Amino acid sequence: MSARRAPQQHMKIAEHLRSKILSGDIPAGSLLPSEAELCEEFSTSRGPVRQALASLRTEGIISSGRGRRSVVLPHEKTETFETFISNYDWIESNGWEASSKTLWMARCPAPEHISQMLSINEGDPVVFLHRVRSANGIPIAVERSYFTLPVGKHVLYMDPDQGSLHAKLRDVGLGLDHGRREMYGKVIADEDAKHLELEPGSSAMVSKLLLSDHNGTPVEYTEMLHVLEGMTITYNYIAGTPSPLDISMRHSTRYEK
Amino acid sequence: MSARRAPQQHMKIAEHLRSKILSGDIPAGSLLPSEAELCEEFSTSRGPVRQALASLRTEGIISSGRGRRSVVLPHEKTETFETFISNYDWIESNGWEASSKTLWMARCPAPEHISQMLSINEGDPVVFLHRVRSANGIPIAVERSYFTLPVGKHVLYMDPDQGSLHAKLRDVGLGLDHGRREMYGKVIADEDAKHLELEPGSSAMVSKLLLSDHNGTPVEYTEMLHVLEGMTITYNYIAGTPSPLDISMRHSTRYEK
Repeated sequence: MSARRAPQQHMKIAEHLRSKILSGDIPAGSLLPSEAELCEEFSTSRGPVRQALASLRTEGIISSGRGRRSVVLPHEKTETFETFISNYDWIESNGWEASSKTLWMARCPAPEHISQMLSINEGDPVVFLHRVRSANGIPIAVERSYFTLPVGKHVLYMDPDQGSLHAKLRDVGLGLDHGRREMYGKVIADEDAKHLELEPGSSAMVSKLLLSDHNGTPVEYTEMLHVLEGMTITYNYIAGTPSPLDISMRHSTRYEK
Repeated sequence: MSARRAPQQHMKIAEHLRSKILSGDIPAGSLLPSEAELCEEFSTSRGPVRQALASLRTEGIISSGRGRRSVVLPHEKTETFETFISNYDWIESNGWEASSKTLWMARCPAPEHISQMLSINEGDPVVFLHRVRSANGIPIAVERSYFTLPVGKHVLYMDPDQGSLHAKLRDVGLGLDHGRREMYGKVIADEDAKHLELEPGSSAMVSKLLLSDHNGTPVEYTEMLHVLEGMTITYNYIAGTPSPLDISMRHSTRYEK
């Protein structure tokens, strides 16, 4: 694969600037070199330089450059595909010790709404995994996962409370390619509040994750209830660049006429 | 500006594919043409085709293509820079009628934490605007905005309850270039709950927005408290592409050792 796709000039320029920005070599608030200066530095034409800058804009780390030169924006580390798919990796990336307590693991027929998410028939077998995830020993999320059988049969013989399940699935060649995440706050059931050591009637952050393989086939659907307090989403938006986010009101009839 | 930056081949290819995908001409779940087919269709080499595909991946609308061909992913409309900066545009984009009730508008000295956000001195003059925003007449957010004086002096002579304030600022040449958003859930003060017609002790979605001009100078800092129920964030993440999002635990000491 790497032989087939050698990094192109614009990718090298982007990577060079990105590493200088993320390491703090070019600090937030400072100006990037001009397009002409970058062309000279990399002995290249404007095309690759502009593509490199466009890519850094989409990542949210430099301004639009519509004034004169682009400004480096304040930024934090952003999520990786691993912290996106795995609560284990996400908790560890926050600097805490991740642990997990499995309540249920079962092979069972898919309920209707799960079969729809996974594009299988109602009643087709799935592997269900119900866990409480903790950070430094304190409950942080209640998780209900449903795996299609080709993946789930591997889950059944793994210890779901030891390390990252997704790392183990990757090790047996079951890597994931993309996922869709939906997040919103809601008041949760008393049973879930108890798992999270919250008062009855508390709100949590619901996070629904649909994960697919390289062919676009859904293989896992997980619903997480995260402790709401402190769960923070941060991003930069630069005028003229596309955003992958949709923020809207759903799951609510409060504003219907 | 458009004369200076004519669209390049890869941008044309991306735009062509994007419009076919967003219009439903190429529906979710279907395969994109292969790289070779796209090269032929656009009479071009692999370089621009790959750049176009990379850009659609960053937008979250096609899969990684690490298997064979890229799959079109399920997606919704994503936010625009206008819905990002303006509650008025955001409420209207949900299909509701936006209205606004100003509680306070004042020229006053910047409190310490506001002066830090806006990179000015404590006590420097700012324009403060405190509004309740509604959708179809029902309160949806409480908003506290602070503008630096060069922008704020224009705000002072506008009617903040008529249409979009940001559209009016754009009209007088005060366009914004980029912004940083931080969102998290928390239990809000009883006074704010009352404005939102919620029970005392309710949680809301805090959304903090720092908006800057083309030179990277902060011009507005706004804290919004959105009704939590229904406020939904959705996005796709494709392996191997950068994400602009940081999701982590802040504003909480629950997990400290």
